[in-house]
Amino acid sequence: MTTTVAPPHPFDAAVDLESITPGLSTGHTSTAYNNMVGPFGGITSATLLASVQRHPECLGEPLSLTVNFAGPIAEGQFEITARPVRTNRTTQHWWIELAQNGTVATTATAVFGLRRDTWDSTEIEMPAVPAAEDVPAQPFPEFIAWAQNYEMRFIEGAIPDLESGEHPDSVSTLWVRDSPPRALDFFSLTSLCDVFFPRVFLRRGKMAPAGTVSLTIYFHADAAALARQSDRSVLGTARTQRFGNGYFDQSAELWGSDGELLATTHQLVYFKD
Amino acid sequence: MTTTVAPPHPFDAAVDLESITPGLSTGHTSTAYNNMVGPFGGITSATLLASVQRHPECLGEPLSLTVNFAGPIAEGQFEITARPVRTNRTTQHWWIELAQNGTVATTATAVFGLRRDTWDSTEIEMPAVPAAEDVPAQPFPEFIAWAQNYEMRFIEGAIPDLESGEHPDSVSTLWVRDSPPRALDFFSLTSLCDVFFPRVFLRRGKMAPAGTVSLTIYFHADAAALARQSDRSVLGTARTQRFGNGYFDQSAELWGSDGELLATTHQLVYFKD
Repeated sequence: MTTTVAPPHPFDAAVDLESITPGLSTGHTSTAYNNMVGPFGGITSATLLASVQRHPECLGEPLSLTVNFAGPIAEGQFEITARPVRTNRTTQHWWIELAQNGTVATTATAVFGLRRDTWDSTEIEMPAVPAAEDVPAQPFPEFIAWAQNYEMRFIEGAIPDLESGEHPDSVSTLWVRDSPPRALDFFSLTSLCDVFFPRVFLRRGKMAPAGTVSLTIYFHADAAALARQSDRSVLGTARTQRFGNGYFDQSAELWGSDGELLATTHQLVYFKD
Repeated sequence: MTTTVAPPHPFDAAVDLESITPGLSTGHTSTAYNNMVGPFGGITSATLLASVQRHPECLGEPLSLTVNFAGPIAEGQFEITARPVRTNRTTQHWWIELAQNGTVATTATAVFGLRRDTWDSTEIEMPAVPAAEDVPAQPFPEFIAWAQNYEMRFIEGAIPDLESGEHPDSVSTLWVRDSPPRALDFFSLTSLCDVFFPRVFLRRGKMAPAGTVSLTIYFHADAAALARQSDRSVLGTARTQRFGNGYFDQSAELWGSDGELLATTHQLVYFKD
Protein backbone atom coordinates (compact mmCIF):
# COMPACT_ATOMS: atom_id res chain seq x y z
CA MET A 1 0.00 0.00 0.00
CA THR A 2 1.32 3.40 -0.90
CA THR A 3 0.07 6.70 0.51
CA THR A 4 0.40 9.90 -1.44
CA VAL A 5 0.31 13.11 0.53
CA ALA A 6 -0.60 16.32 -1.30
CA PRO A 7 1.94 19.09 -0.73
CA PRO A 8 0.58 21.73 1.64
CA HIS A 9 -0.91 24.96 0.27
CA PRO A 10 1.91 27.52 -0.04
CA PHE A 11 0.15 29.62 2.60
CA ASP A 12 0.19 26.77 5.12
CA ALA A 13 3.85 26.12 4.36
CA ALA A 14 4.59 29.83 4.95
CA VAL A 15 2.89 30.04 8.37
CA ASP A 16 4.19 26.66 9.56
CA LEU A 17 5.92 26.67 12.95
CA GLU A 18 7.93 24.14 14.89
CA SER A 19 7.10 24.16 18.59
CA ILE A 20 10.23 24.07 20.78
CA THR A 21 8.50 24.72 24.12
CA PRO A 22 4.88 25.86 24.71
CA GLY A 23 5.86 29.52 24.40
CA LEU A 24 8.70 29.26 21.91
CA SER A 25 8.55 28.19 18.27
CA THR A 26 10.69 28.52 15.16
CA GLY A 27 9.62 29.29 11.63
CA HIS A 28 11.26 30.40 8.42
CA THR A 29 10.65 33.00 5.75
CA SER A 30 9.00 31.79 2.57
CA THR A 31 10.26 33.21 -0.74
CA ALA A 32 6.75 32.72 -2.19
CA TYR A 33 5.52 35.43 0.20
CA ASN A 34 8.37 37.89 -0.12
CA ASN A 35 7.68 41.56 -0.55
CA MET A 36 10.11 43.95 -2.25
CA VAL A 37 12.24 43.98 0.92
CA GLY A 38 11.72 41.05 3.32
CA PRO A 39 8.53 39.09 3.85
CA PHE A 40 5.01 40.41 3.14
CA GLY A 41 3.62 41.89 6.35
CA GLY A 42 0.44 39.85 6.02
CA ILE A 43 2.30 36.55 6.20
CA THR A 44 4.35 37.73 9.20
CA SER A 45 1.17 38.82 10.99
CA ALA A 46 -0.53 35.49 10.23
CA THR A 47 2.50 33.60 11.55
CA LEU A 48 2.46 35.60 14.80
CA LEU A 49 -1.25 34.86 15.22
CA ALA A 50 -0.54 31.18 14.56
CA SER A 51 2.04 31.14 17.35
CA VAL A 52 -0.76 32.05 19.78
CA GLN A 53 -3.51 29.91 18.33
CA ARG A 54 -1.27 26.83 18.44
CA HIS A 55 -0.20 27.53 22.04
CA PRO A 56 -1.64 24.86 24.37
CA GLU A 57 -3.03 27.53 26.75
CA CYS A 58 -4.82 29.53 24.02
CA LEU A 59 -8.36 30.57 25.04
CA GLY A 60 -11.04 31.06 22.39
CA GLU A 61 -10.70 32.91 19.11
CA PRO A 62 -8.82 36.06 18.06
CA LEU A 63 -10.59 39.35 18.83
CA SER A 64 -7.82 41.80 17.99
CA LEU A 65 -4.20 41.81 16.86
CA THR A 66 -1.63 44.60 16.65
CA VAL A 67 1.67 43.95 14.88
CA ASN A 68 4.60 46.38 15.04
CA PHE A 69 7.20 46.03 12.30
CA ALA A 70 10.27 47.06 14.23
CA GLY A 71 13.01 46.04 11.81
CA PRO A 72 13.78 43.93 8.74
CA ILE A 73 13.36 40.14 8.76
CA ALA A 74 16.22 38.43 6.90
CA GLU A 75 15.73 35.33 4.70
CA GLY A 76 15.84 32.23 6.86
CA GLN A 77 14.85 31.09 10.31
CA PHE A 78 13.23 33.15 13.06
CA GLU A 79 12.11 32.50 16.64
CA ILE A 80 8.71 33.48 17.99
CA THR A 81 8.02 33.89 21.70
CA ALA A 82 4.31 34.02 22.66
CA ARG A 83 3.38 34.71 26.28
CA PRO A 84 -0.11 34.85 27.80
CA VAL A 85 0.29 38.03 29.86
CA ARG A 86 -3.10 37.72 31.49
CA THR A 87 -5.92 35.19 31.28
CA ASN A 88 -9.40 36.21 32.43
CA ARG A 89 -12.60 34.19 32.44
CA THR A 90 -13.50 35.04 28.83
CA THR A 91 -10.50 36.96 27.44
CA GLN A 92 -6.77 36.39 27.19
CA HIS A 93 -4.04 38.95 26.45
CA TRP A 94 -0.85 37.94 24.59
CA TRP A 95 2.59 39.42 24.05
CA ILE A 96 4.44 38.11 20.99
CA GLU A 97 7.98 38.76 19.77
CA LEU A 98 9.72 37.62 16.58
CA ALA A 99 13.52 37.64 16.72
CA GLN A 100 16.47 36.57 14.60
CA ASN A 101 19.82 35.92 16.26
CA GLY A 102 18.60 37.62 19.41
CA THR A 103 17.50 40.83 17.66
CA VAL A 104 13.79 41.68 17.81
CA ALA A 105 12.33 42.29 14.35
CA THR A 106 8.58 42.30 15.07
CA THR A 107 6.43 42.69 18.18
CA ALA A 108 2.73 42.09 18.59
CA THR A 109 -0.10 41.99 21.09
CA ALA A 110 -3.22 39.92 20.63
CA VAL A 111 -6.50 39.59 22.48
CA PHE A 112 -8.27 36.25 22.27
CA GLY A 113 -11.59 35.39 23.84
CA LEU A 114 -14.88 33.58 23.92
CA ARG A 115 -17.70 35.17 21.99
CA ARG A 116 -21.32 35.28 23.17
CA ASP A 117 -24.58 35.77 21.29
CA THR A 118 -25.70 39.38 21.64
CA TRP A 119 -27.67 42.03 19.83
CA ASP A 120 -25.86 42.83 16.59
CA SER A 121 -25.87 45.53 13.95
CA THR A 122 -23.55 46.32 11.06
CA GLU A 123 -23.65 50.08 10.63
CA ILE A 124 -21.52 50.46 7.52
CA GLU A 125 -22.62 49.14 4.14
CA MET A 126 -20.77 46.79 1.83
CA PRO A 127 -19.85 48.66 -1.36
CA ALA A 128 -22.20 47.93 -4.28
CA VAL A 129 -19.99 45.98 -6.69
CA PRO A 130 -20.34 43.38 -9.45
CA ALA A 131 -19.97 39.70 -8.48
CA ALA A 132 -16.38 38.45 -8.29
CA GLU A 133 -16.74 36.29 -11.42
CA ASP A 134 -17.75 39.36 -13.41
CA VAL A 135 -14.56 41.27 -12.58
CA PRO A 136 -11.37 40.26 -14.43
CA ALA A 137 -8.43 39.09 -12.32
CA GLN A 138 -5.54 41.52 -12.62
CA PRO A 139 -1.97 40.32 -12.17
CA PHE A 140 0.51 42.25 -10.03
CA PRO A 141 4.03 42.93 -11.33
CA GLU A 142 6.06 39.71 -11.07
CA PHE A 143 8.69 41.21 -8.76
CA ILE A 144 6.05 41.42 -5.99
CA ALA A 145 6.22 37.73 -5.07
CA TRP A 146 3.52 37.62 -2.37
CA ALA A 147 0.87 39.04 -4.69
CA GLN A 148 1.24 36.02 -7.00
CA ASN A 149 -0.45 33.99 -4.21
CA TYR A 150 -3.60 36.08 -4.40
CA GLU A 151 -6.29 36.30 -7.05
CA MET A 152 -7.18 40.00 -7.10
CA ARG A 153 -10.11 41.45 -9.02
CA PHE A 154 -9.97 45.23 -8.74
CA ILE A 155 -13.17 47.22 -9.04
CA GLU A 156 -11.29 50.48 -8.38
CA GLY A 157 -7.79 51.57 -7.44
CA ALA A 158 -5.59 48.88 -9.02
CA ILE A 159 -1.84 49.10 -8.49
CA PRO A 160 -0.37 51.90 -10.65
CA ASP A 161 1.85 51.24 -13.64
CA LEU A 162 4.41 53.47 -15.34
CA GLU A 163 1.66 55.36 -17.18
CA SER A 164 -0.41 56.11 -14.08
CA GLY A 165 -0.54 59.70 -12.94
CA GLU A 166 -1.77 61.05 -9.63
CA HIS A 167 -5.08 59.52 -8.55
CA PRO A 168 -7.80 61.77 -7.06
CA ASP A 169 -8.16 59.51 -4.01
CA SER A 170 -6.52 56.54 -2.32
CA VAL A 171 -9.46 54.09 -2.48
CA SER A 172 -8.98 50.51 -3.67
CA THR A 173 -11.85 48.03 -3.77
CA LEU A 174 -11.22 44.46 -4.88
CA TRP A 175 -12.38 40.88 -4.67
CA VAL A 176 -9.50 38.80 -3.34
CA ARG A 177 -8.76 35.23 -2.29
CA ASP A 178 -5.81 32.89 -1.99
CA SER A 179 -4.44 31.42 -5.22
CA PRO A 180 -4.88 28.48 -5.44
CA PRO A 181 -8.16 28.86 -3.49
CA ARG A 182 -8.01 27.89 0.19
CA ALA A 183 -10.79 27.84 2.83
CA LEU A 184 -10.63 31.02 4.93
CA ASP A 185 -9.34 30.74 8.50
CA PHE A 186 -8.11 33.35 11.00
CA PHE A 187 -4.58 33.08 9.60
CA SER A 188 -5.52 33.79 5.98
CA LEU A 189 -7.98 36.50 7.06
CA THR A 190 -5.12 38.16 8.96
CA SER A 191 -2.91 38.05 5.89
CA LEU A 192 -5.71 39.42 3.68
CA CYS A 193 -5.90 42.46 5.97
CA ASP A 194 -2.52 43.52 4.55
CA VAL A 195 -3.16 43.01 0.79
CA PHE A 196 -3.90 46.71 0.33
CA PHE A 197 -0.59 47.93 -1.12
CA PRO A 198 0.60 51.27 0.31
CA ARG A 199 -2.07 53.85 -0.51
CA VAL A 200 0.60 56.41 -1.40
CA PHE A 201 1.45 54.33 -4.51
CA LEU A 202 -2.12 54.73 -5.77
CA ARG A 203 -2.56 58.35 -4.77
CA ARG A 204 0.71 59.52 -6.32
CA GLY A 205 0.68 57.07 -9.25
CA LYS A 206 4.13 55.66 -8.57
CA MET A 207 5.96 53.23 -6.34
CA ALA A 208 8.46 54.53 -3.80
CA PRO A 209 9.88 53.17 -0.54
CA ALA A 210 7.05 52.53 1.95
CA GLY A 211 6.43 50.01 4.69
CA THR A 212 3.92 49.27 7.42
CA VAL A 213 5.01 50.43 10.87
CA SER A 214 2.03 49.15 12.89
CA LEU A 215 -1.00 47.08 11.83
CA THR A 216 -4.17 46.48 13.86
CA ILE A 217 -6.96 44.03 13.06
CA TYR A 218 -10.37 43.74 14.74
CA PHE A 219 -11.90 40.35 13.98
CA HIS A 220 -15.67 40.50 13.61
CA ALA A 221 -15.94 36.98 12.14
CA ASP A 222 -16.09 33.92 14.33
CA ALA A 223 -15.15 30.41 13.16
CA ALA A 224 -18.69 29.79 11.91
CA ALA A 225 -18.57 32.92 9.72
CA LEU A 226 -15.24 31.78 8.27
CA ALA A 227 -16.71 28.35 7.51
CA ARG A 228 -19.67 29.99 5.72
CA GLN A 229 -17.24 32.00 3.60
CA SER A 230 -15.04 28.98 2.73
CA ASP A 231 -12.79 29.67 -0.29
CA ARG A 232 -14.92 32.29 -2.02
CA SER A 233 -13.55 35.76 -2.73
CA VAL A 234 -13.59 38.37 0.02
CA LEU A 235 -14.38 42.01 -0.81
CA GLY A 236 -11.78 44.41 0.51
CA THR A 237 -11.88 48.18 0.43
CA ALA A 238 -9.16 50.50 1.76
CA ARG A 239 -8.33 54.18 1.95
CA THR A 240 -6.03 56.69 3.67
CA GLN A 241 -7.17 59.47 5.95
CA ARG A 242 -4.00 61.56 6.05
CA PHE A 243 -0.53 61.50 4.43
CA GLY A 244 2.16 63.77 5.87
CA ASN A 245 5.53 64.12 7.58
CA GLY A 246 6.73 60.73 6.30
CA TYR A 247 3.75 58.67 7.49
CA PHE A 248 0.17 57.91 6.56
CA ASP A 249 -2.62 55.80 7.99
CA GLN A 250 -4.86 53.47 6.02
CA SER A 251 -8.10 51.75 7.05
CA ALA A 252 -9.86 48.84 5.38
CA GLU A 253 -12.88 46.58 5.68
CA LEU A 254 -13.08 42.94 4.59
CA TRP A 255 -16.50 41.60 3.67
CA GLY A 256 -17.60 38.03 3.04
CA SER A 257 -19.20 37.30 -0.32
CA ASP A 258 -22.63 37.17 1.39
CA GLY A 259 -22.20 40.67 2.82
CA GLU A 260 -20.97 39.76 6.31
CA LEU A 261 -18.32 42.12 7.76
CA LEU A 262 -15.38 39.82 8.60
CA ALA A 263 -12.72 42.27 9.80
CA THR A 264 -11.83 45.95 10.06
CA THR A 265 -8.16 46.85 9.93
CA HIS A 266 -5.96 49.91 10.26
CA GLN A 267 -2.29 50.62 9.76
CA LEU A 268 0.35 53.32 9.99
CA VAL A 269 2.77 53.32 7.07
CA TYR A 270 6.15 54.95 6.57
CA PHE A 271 6.86 56.50 3.16
CA LYS A 272 9.50 58.41 1.25
CA ASP A 273 8.68 60.99 -1.43
CA MET B 1 10.57 85.40 51.05
CA THR B 2 7.59 83.19 50.34
CA THR B 3 6.93 81.39 47.09
CA THR B 4 3.46 80.33 46.07
CA VAL B 5 3.19 77.49 43.64
CA ALA B 6 -0.04 77.01 41.70
CA PRO B 7 -1.44 73.48 42.09
CA PRO B 8 -0.93 71.45 38.94
CA HIS B 9 -3.81 70.99 36.47
CA PRO B 10 -5.78 67.87 37.52
CA PHE B 11 -4.70 66.22 34.26
CA ASP B 12 -1.02 66.72 35.05
CA ALA B 13 -1.54 65.38 38.55
CA ALA B 14 -3.27 62.31 37.09
CA VAL B 15 -0.48 61.41 34.62
CA ASP B 16 2.32 62.20 37.08
CA LEU B 17 4.92 59.45 37.53
CA GLU B 18 7.81 58.91 39.89
CA SER B 19 10.85 57.46 38.16
CA ILE B 20 12.42 54.59 40.11
CA THR B 21 14.89 53.46 37.44
CA PRO B 22 15.01 54.55 33.75
CA GLY B 23 12.54 51.79 32.76
CA LEU B 24 10.45 51.60 35.92
CA SER B 25 8.13 54.22 37.38
CA THR B 26 5.25 54.37 39.80
CA GLY B 27 2.03 56.31 39.55
CA HIS B 28 -1.36 56.30 41.22
CA THR B 29 -4.97 56.39 40.16
CA SER B 30 -6.73 59.74 40.35
CA THR B 31 -10.34 59.79 41.56
CA ALA B 32 -10.94 62.87 39.39
CA TYR B 33 -10.46 60.66 36.33
CA ASN B 34 -12.39 57.60 37.47
CA ASN B 35 -14.80 55.89 35.14
CA MET B 36 -17.78 53.85 36.36
CA VAL B 37 -15.39 50.96 37.16
CA GLY B 38 -11.71 51.88 37.56
CA PRO B 39 -9.88 54.73 35.84
CA PHE B 40 -10.92 56.29 32.53
CA GLY B 41 -9.05 54.50 29.71
CA GLY B 42 -7.88 57.80 28.28
CA ILE B 43 -5.97 58.74 31.42
CA THR B 44 -4.39 55.27 31.64
CA SER B 45 -3.32 55.51 28.00
CA ALA B 46 -1.86 58.98 28.54
CA THR B 47 0.06 57.76 31.59
CA LEU B 48 1.52 54.84 29.62
CA LEU B 49 2.60 57.25 26.87
CA ALA B 50 4.14 59.51 29.53
CA SER B 51 6.22 56.60 30.84
CA VAL B 52 7.89 56.41 27.41
CA GLN B 53 8.19 60.10 26.69
CA ARG B 54 9.88 60.69 30.07
CA HIS B 55 12.31 57.78 29.54
CA PRO B 56 15.86 59.13 29.07
CA GLU B 57 16.36 57.02 25.91
CA CYS B 58 13.14 58.18 24.21
CA LEU B 59 13.62 59.05 20.52
CA GLY B 60 11.43 61.65 18.84
CA GLU B 61 7.66 61.96 19.10
CA PRO B 62 4.83 59.41 19.32
CA LEU B 63 3.70 57.98 15.98
CA SER B 64 1.37 55.22 17.19
CA LEU B 65 0.15 53.72 20.44
CA THR B 66 -1.84 50.56 21.16
CA VAL B 67 -3.17 49.98 24.67
CA ASN B 68 -4.70 46.65 25.75
CA PHE B 69 -6.94 46.78 28.82
CA ALA B 70 -6.23 43.34 30.24
CA GLY B 71 -7.82 43.65 33.67
CA PRO B 72 -9.15 46.10 36.24
CA ILE B 73 -6.92 48.74 37.85
CA ALA B 74 -7.67 49.12 41.57
CA GLU B 75 -7.60 52.49 43.38
CA GLY B 76 -4.07 53.26 44.43
CA GLN B 77 -0.52 52.82 43.25
CA PHE B 78 0.65 51.03 40.09
CA GLU B 79 4.01 50.26 38.51
CA ILE B 80 4.82 50.92 34.86
CA THR B 81 7.65 49.17 33.04
CA ALA B 82 8.66 50.74 29.71
CA ARG B 83 11.27 48.98 27.58
CA PRO B 84 12.71 50.15 24.24
CA VAL B 85 12.50 46.84 22.35
CA ARG B 86 14.28 48.17 19.28
CA THR B 87 15.81 51.51 18.37
CA ASN B 88 16.42 52.29 14.70
CA ARG B 89 17.90 55.43 13.15
CA THR B 90 14.55 57.25 13.00
CA THR B 91 12.06 55.00 14.83
CA GLN B 92 11.87 53.34 18.22
CA HIS B 93 9.55 50.52 19.34
CA TRP B 94 8.38 50.27 22.94
CA TRP B 95 6.81 47.61 25.14
CA ILE B 96 4.92 48.94 28.18
CA GLU B 97 3.27 47.10 31.05
CA LEU B 98 1.20 48.44 33.96
CA ALA B 99 0.98 46.15 36.99
CA GLN B 100 -0.35 46.21 40.54
CA ASN B 101 1.09 43.83 43.13
CA GLY B 102 2.76 41.84 40.36
CA THR B 103 -0.42 41.35 38.31
CA VAL B 104 -0.49 42.88 34.83
CA ALA B 105 -3.53 45.13 34.31
CA THR B 106 -2.64 46.92 31.07
CA THR B 107 -0.17 46.31 28.23
CA ALA B 108 0.83 48.63 25.43
CA THR B 109 3.13 49.06 22.48
CA ALA B 110 4.23 52.42 21.14
CA VAL B 111 6.18 53.58 18.12
CA PHE B 112 8.09 56.82 18.47
CA GLY B 113 10.14 58.47 15.77
CA LEU B 114 11.53 61.49 14.01
CA ARG B 115 9.27 63.10 11.45
CA ARG B 116 10.44 64.51 8.11
CA ASP B 117 8.92 67.08 5.78
CA THR B 118 7.20 65.25 2.92
CA TRP B 119 4.38 65.67 0.47
CA ASP B 120 1.14 65.76 2.42
CA SER B 121 -2.58 65.41 1.79
CA THR B 122 -5.58 65.04 4.08
CA GLU B 123 -8.09 62.94 2.20
CA ILE B 124 -11.00 63.05 4.62
CA GLU B 125 -12.89 66.25 5.36
CA MET B 126 -13.55 67.86 8.72
CA PRO B 127 -17.30 67.77 9.42
CA ALA B 128 -19.03 71.09 8.71
CA VAL B 129 -20.03 72.28 12.19
CA PRO B 130 -20.74 75.54 14.02
CA ALA B 131 -17.84 77.14 15.92
CA ALA B 132 -17.29 75.75 19.43
CA GLU B 133 -18.51 78.93 21.12
CA ASP B 134 -21.84 78.61 19.28
CA VAL B 135 -22.53 75.11 20.66
CA PRO B 136 -23.71 74.85 24.29
CA ALA B 137 -21.59 72.81 26.69
CA GLN B 138 -23.48 69.76 27.86
CA PRO B 139 -22.73 68.20 31.24
CA PHE B 140 -22.28 64.44 31.65
CA PRO B 141 -24.04 62.63 34.52
CA GLU B 142 -22.13 63.37 37.73
CA PHE B 143 -21.35 59.72 38.45
CA ILE B 144 -19.00 59.70 35.43
CA ALA B 145 -16.13 61.50 37.18
CA TRP B 146 -13.65 61.73 34.31
CA ALA B 147 -16.14 63.55 32.09
CA GLN B 148 -16.29 66.44 34.59
CA ASN B 149 -12.71 67.26 33.46
CA TYR B 150 -13.80 67.88 29.89
CA GLU B 151 -15.85 70.65 28.36
CA MET B 152 -17.97 68.85 25.75
CA ARG B 153 -20.12 70.61 23.18
CA PHE B 154 -22.08 67.98 21.27
CA ILE B 155 -23.22 68.72 17.74
CA GLU B 156 -24.73 65.24 17.41
CA GLY B 157 -24.88 62.04 19.42
CA ALA B 158 -24.81 63.27 23.03
CA ILE B 159 -24.82 60.68 25.81
CA PRO B 160 -28.32 59.17 26.18
CA ASP B 161 -30.54 59.84 29.18
CA LEU B 162 -33.42 57.82 30.60
CA GLU B 163 -35.79 59.15 27.91
CA SER B 164 -33.53 58.30 24.98
CA GLY B 165 -34.69 55.53 22.69
CA GLU B 166 -32.68 53.68 20.06
CA HIS B 167 -30.63 56.01 17.87
CA PRO B 168 -30.51 55.41 14.10
CA ASP B 169 -26.69 55.46 14.07
CA SER B 170 -23.73 55.55 16.44
CA VAL B 171 -22.21 58.87 15.36
CA SER B 172 -21.12 61.48 17.92
CA THR B 173 -19.53 64.77 16.89
CA LEU B 174 -18.40 67.22 19.55
CA TRP B 175 -16.07 70.06 20.39
CA VAL B 176 -14.03 69.02 23.41
CA ARG B 177 -11.18 70.32 25.55
CA ASP B 178 -9.83 69.96 29.05
CA SER B 179 -11.72 71.72 31.84
CA PRO B 180 -10.15 73.96 33.05
CA PRO B 181 -8.52 74.62 29.65
CA ARG B 182 -4.96 73.27 29.23
CA ALA B 183 -2.59 73.57 26.25
CA LEU B 184 -2.74 70.40 24.16
CA ASP B 185 0.21 67.99 24.33
CA PHE B 186 0.63 64.36 23.29
CA PHE B 187 -0.65 63.18 26.68
CA SER B 188 -3.90 65.12 26.59
CA LEU B 189 -4.41 64.29 22.89
CA THR B 190 -4.06 60.61 23.82
CA SER B 191 -6.66 60.96 26.53
CA LEU B 192 -9.02 62.86 24.21
CA CYS B 193 -8.90 59.87 21.83
CA ASP B 194 -10.93 57.95 24.42
CA VAL B 195 -13.63 60.57 25.22
CA PHE B 196 -16.12 58.90 22.87
CA PHE B 197 -18.27 56.95 25.35
CA PRO B 198 -19.13 53.40 24.18
CA ARG B 199 -21.08 53.72 20.92
CA VAL B 200 -23.51 51.02 22.04
CA PHE B 201 -24.90 53.45 24.67
CA LEU B 202 -25.85 55.90 21.93
CA ARG B 203 -27.11 53.34 19.42
CA ARG B 204 -29.32 51.52 21.92
CA GLY B 205 -30.27 54.57 23.98
CA LYS B 206 -29.18 53.15 27.31
CA MET B 207 -26.12 52.47 29.40
CA ALA B 208 -25.01 48.89 30.03
CA PRO B 209 -21.70 47.27 30.98
CA ALA B 210 -19.08 48.03 28.30
CA GLY B 211 -15.34 48.57 28.30
CA THR B 212 -12.50 49.11 25.88
CA VAL B 213 -10.45 45.98 25.18
CA SER B 214 -7.84 47.48 22.85
CA LEU B 215 -7.24 51.09 21.76
CA THR B 216 -4.99 52.28 18.93
CA ILE B 217 -3.98 55.86 18.14
CA TYR B 218 -2.18 57.16 15.05
CA PHE B 219 -0.69 60.57 15.77
CA HIS B 220 -0.77 62.86 12.75
CA ALA B 221 0.09 66.00 14.74
CA ASP B 222 3.65 66.91 15.59
CA ALA B 223 4.66 69.17 18.47
CA ALA B 224 4.31 72.27 16.26
CA ALA B 225 0.70 71.34 15.39
CA LEU B 226 -0.08 70.87 19.07
CA ALA B 227 1.40 74.28 19.86
CA ARG B 228 -0.75 75.88 17.12
CA GLN B 229 -3.84 74.29 18.69
CA SER B 230 -2.97 75.37 22.26
CA ASP B 231 -6.00 75.16 24.58
CA ARG B 232 -8.76 75.63 22.00
CA SER B 233 -11.45 72.98 21.53
CA VAL B 234 -10.72 69.95 19.37
CA LEU B 235 -13.43 68.53 17.10
CA GLY B 236 -13.95 64.82 17.59
CA THR B 237 -16.21 62.54 15.59
CA ALA B 238 -16.70 58.81 16.25
CA ARG B 239 -18.77 55.88 14.98
CA THR B 240 -18.99 52.09 15.09
CA GLN B 241 -18.66 49.84 12.08
CA ARG B 242 -20.07 46.62 13.55
CA PHE B 243 -21.64 45.48 16.84
CA GLY B 244 -22.00 41.74 17.45
CA ASN B 245 -21.09 38.70 19.54
CA GLY B 246 -20.27 40.77 22.60
CA TYR B 247 -17.87 43.22 20.91
CA PHE B 248 -17.89 46.25 18.65
CA ASP B 249 -15.29 48.47 17.07
CA GLN B 250 -15.32 52.25 17.00
CA SER B 251 -13.23 54.70 14.98
CA ALA B 252 -12.76 58.42 15.51
CA GLU B 253 -10.96 61.44 14.15
CA LEU B 254 -9.70 64.42 16.14
CA TRP B 255 -9.39 67.73 14.32
CA GLY B 256 -7.73 70.92 15.43
CA SER B 257 -9.90 74.03 15.48
CA ASP B 258 -8.17 75.23 12.28
CA GLY B 259 -9.09 72.04 10.42
CA GLU B 260 -5.83 70.13 10.88
CA LEU B 261 -6.24 66.35 11.42
CA LEU B 262 -4.46 65.67 14.74
CA ALA B 263 -5.12 61.96 15.29
CA THR B 264 -7.12 58.99 14.06
CA THR B 265 -8.05 56.35 16.60
CA HIS B 266 -9.74 52.98 16.74
CA GLN B 267 -10.87 50.67 19.50
CA LEU B 268 -12.46 47.31 20.18
CA VAL B 269 -15.03 47.40 22.97
CA TYR B 270 -16.66 44.65 25.02
CA PHE B 271 -20.39 45.01 25.78
CA LYS B 272 -23.27 43.23 27.48
CA ASP B 273 -26.87 43.45 26.29
